[in-house]
Amino acid sequence: MNPVELIIKKRNGCTLSREEIEEFITGFLLGEVPDYQMAAFLMAVYYEGMGPEETAHLTNVMLRSGKTIDLSSIPARKIDKHSTGGVGDKVSLILAPMVAACGIAVPMISGRALGHTGGTLDKLESIPGFRTELSIEEFRNILRETLVVLAGQTSEIAPADRRMYALRDVTGTIESVPLIAGSIMSKKLAEGLDGLVLDVKTGCGAFMEKESDAIALAEALIAIGRSAGKEVIAFVTGMDQPLGMTIGNWCEVVEALECLKGKNVPDLMEVTYVLGGAMVFLGGGASSITQGIERCRSAIWSGQAYEIFLRLVERQGGDAAMLRDVHAYPVAGARREVRAERSGYLTAFATKRIGFLAVAMGAGRRKMEDVLDPLAGIILAHKIGDWVSSGDLLATIVCGREDLAEIGAREFSHCLTITDVPPPQQSYVRAVVDKDGTRPWRTPEIY
Amino acid sequence: MNPVELIIKKRNGCTLSREEIEEFITGFLLGEVPDYQMAAFLMAVYYEGMGPEETAHLTNVMLRSGKTIDLSSIPARKIDKHSTGGVGDKVSLILAPMVAACGIAVPMISGRALGHTGGTLDKLESIPGFRTELSIEEFRNILRETLVVLAGQTSEIAPADRRMYALRDVTGTIESVPLIAGSIMSKKLAEGLDGLVLDVKTGCGAFMEKESDAIALAEALIAIGRSAGKEVIAFVTGMDQPLGMTIGNWCEVVEALECLKGKNVPDLMEVTYVLGGAMVFLGGGASSITQGIERCRSAIWSGQAYEIFLRLVERQGGDAAMLRDVHAYPVAGARREVRAERSGYLTAFATKRIGFLAVAMGAGRRKMEDVLDPLAGIILAHKIGDWVSSGDLLATIVCGREDLAEIGAREFSHCLTITDVPPPQQSYVRAVVDKDGTRPWRTPEIY
Repeated sequence: MNPVELIIKKRNGCTLSREEIEEFITGFLLGEVPDYQMAAFLMAVYYEGMGPEETAHLTNVMLRSGKTIDLSSIPARKIDKHSTGGVGDKVSLILAPMVAACGIAVPMISGRALGHTGGTLDKLESIPGFRTELSIEEFRNILRETLVVLAGQTSEIAPADRRMYALRDVTGTIESVPLIAGSIMSKKLAEGLDGLVLDVKTGCGAFMEKESDAIALAEALIAIGRSAGKEVIAFVTGMDQPLGMTIGNWCEVVEALECLKGKNVPDLMEVTYVLGGAMVFLGGGASSITQGIERCRSAIWSGQAYEIFLRLVERQGGDAAMLRDVHAYPVAGARREVRAERSGYLTAFATKRIGFLAVAMGAGRRKMEDVLDPLAGIILAHKIGDWVSSGDLLATIVCGREDLAEIGAREFSHCLTITDVPPPQQSYVRAVVDKDGTRPWRTPEIY
Repeated sequence: MNPVELIIKKRNGCTLSREEIEEFITGFLLGEVPDYQMAAFLMAVYYEGMGPEETAHLTNVMLRSGKTIDLSSIPARKIDKHSTGGVGDKVSLILAPMVAACGIAVPMISGRALGHTGGTLDKLESIPGFRTELSIEEFRNILRETLVVLAGQTSEIAPADRRMYALRDVTGTIESVPLIAGSIMSKKLAEGLDGLVLDVKTGCGAFMEKESDAIALAEALIAIGRSAGKEVIAFVTGMDQPLGMTIGNWCEVVEALECLKGKNVPDLMEVTYVLGGAMVFLGGGASSITQGIERCRSAIWSGQAYEIFLRLVERQGGDAAMLRDVHAYPVAGARREVRAERSGYLTAFATKRIGFLAVAMGAGRRKMEDVLDPLAGIILAHKIGDWVSSGDLLATIVCGREDLAEIGAREFSHCLTITDVPPPQQSYVRAVVDKDGTRPWRTPEIY
């Protein structure tokens, strides 16, 4: 194979064969295809896309570049959830113990903050002592004991994806359906799952801003999952505003704890229940998503989900006592309030900008070596559709440095829109693409 | 500047500012922008293109990345020619001494074989002893003495272009109008020229196969030249068949010598005279291109052009005696004849394929480190439009290895089409884009 010819073939809009994709990616891992050729290839894929077969081949090659986790010794059905990333998205922290409480094993491999979005691993690591780097053996043992495990990608899983992802991040080639799909599914297929529920975000705070792009990605993900014999259900959910009332690491853990103890944060819990219901359904714990949702509600109401989360935190080295008494946690040194400059309806958040603002305050990284401030964050007082009077509290900015808090408050005040007319109501769950078909329903009657 | 943001900006179809282009390219030269980011950027430019202003900024930044040659001490007007590359294109060898014989200084910096096309430097180096690596001082001295100099790009001229070109060659990003235009013009503007004549090739043996693409490139080149205050005339010429009767290095030198001695190879000499006429016109040696052509014809008929070429070869270390008696040159060890399998009109050459075939036989390089066989080549017996009878000689394949000659002959026999109907006649010079406007004339009445 001549790598240049393969790049030109893709650039000219032709379809690559399984052998060509395999040779190119294997060559990349062996160092025969240098980073600059992979970068040009990724940009060509950004423009030309990949057909369903090409995407499946790509995923398969990336999957086979590393080890897979054998979970066959665990009798329960193994179901995971993956989100394409959002702002304030702490769903996994509530969802994973909730679904485990329904008897479904949840072997969840999560990521870190990326671009303007937060990462489950970073949130978990704001809990003192919590370890997310587990060996495959530990991963399996914890899952067996608690039916849930929350860990980071090990270096053994899909190394091709890890190297390609790092390159995409610095070459402007993140937003590509086949590349996103291959990246997600190569890791998920390595987890030894029986089924997968996907949360594909759309709206101004999502990587896929347009709903049609989000649906295209959902369909690509389902097609790959089905070609690998896995059951997959995908939901397209709104990311026009931050999910829940908090953006940051520790503040999101606290909000998740409150929800695990029964607090209803409407958008956050609607998404959590729908995803959880689908997981329980795929795991055989319910005969429909609707019934799955009911089981999830019981898991929360009974306190079982909360107890499992605390047990899991302890098992992964975290300070569970700190979670039982969150007031023992350090308090942010700097704090600013943002208040409404006029009365009206809150109609829009500049959600991506808010995500980047949280990063700038220390909740995420701009370079790989940046150290996070677990306390840095934004606590919202209102959401889209709320009426606010001039002078009302809109949000509290917290972080470790006075200057950052000051900049954060000023910047945040430019991130929302208040108007005289209320915004149109939108459901949080926009569409579902189910495991048996690729046609999405606009009003998801399935649940 | 964040290089990723700049890549994404271009990828999203936005126009980059002069400052952005400058920072990105300077960062690349300083090693702050790694090769993989430049590769992604180049592919984005391939897809999105660049506007005239962006292309001018790019050229200017590449030009200013190195030194320029000061030729102000030479009183004659300095005019160069550049071709976008073809198969069998030995025009420069005849043209440069011919124009110098008309009193115009020709400071010509040429390239090597690239892809399927031949390179003037490689042809010259088939002359024993000929040196193409000259210091700026030597370059200037030779030009002063002989009014012509034929050299390679020194490492001091447009280093940004040299590094970007090397990357484009291995990342499938050669065929981009703004990148080609910037590459050509940054080098040409560094030569201290008064004017430039461009030969933009089109047809199945050119990089720009479509005439509309060739005209777009010609217009981009002229716009850059004009914005730098240079007079530029561009011709679009046909590369549907090899130019002249030979393809290779030494065999092309021999053909050029014959033409310098007055032989008329119709397509080769038509292109050479038109380009030369325009150079003499731009150099102030004629009041029109037509008159310039007449002066060029006299330079050939009088033997002056031939004598200047021999003097130049001597001055650059080459064995001029060998040129006066080409039979003293070594003879190719292997030789195969290709004969017509049927009678009919020769209607088409697969010219790019023929170019690659010459490369495979040793006339060009597949990797930078490949060593050339100066004798390897193809000598045509017929051209498009000729009637051939079954069994007639079509071409002779010559090279150093029997096996390569065998493969070459077999492959060449698949590179031509013989039909019962004669092909439509096409002029060799298709269009001219003159220095005062960007509108091309289909029948170049200008000469």
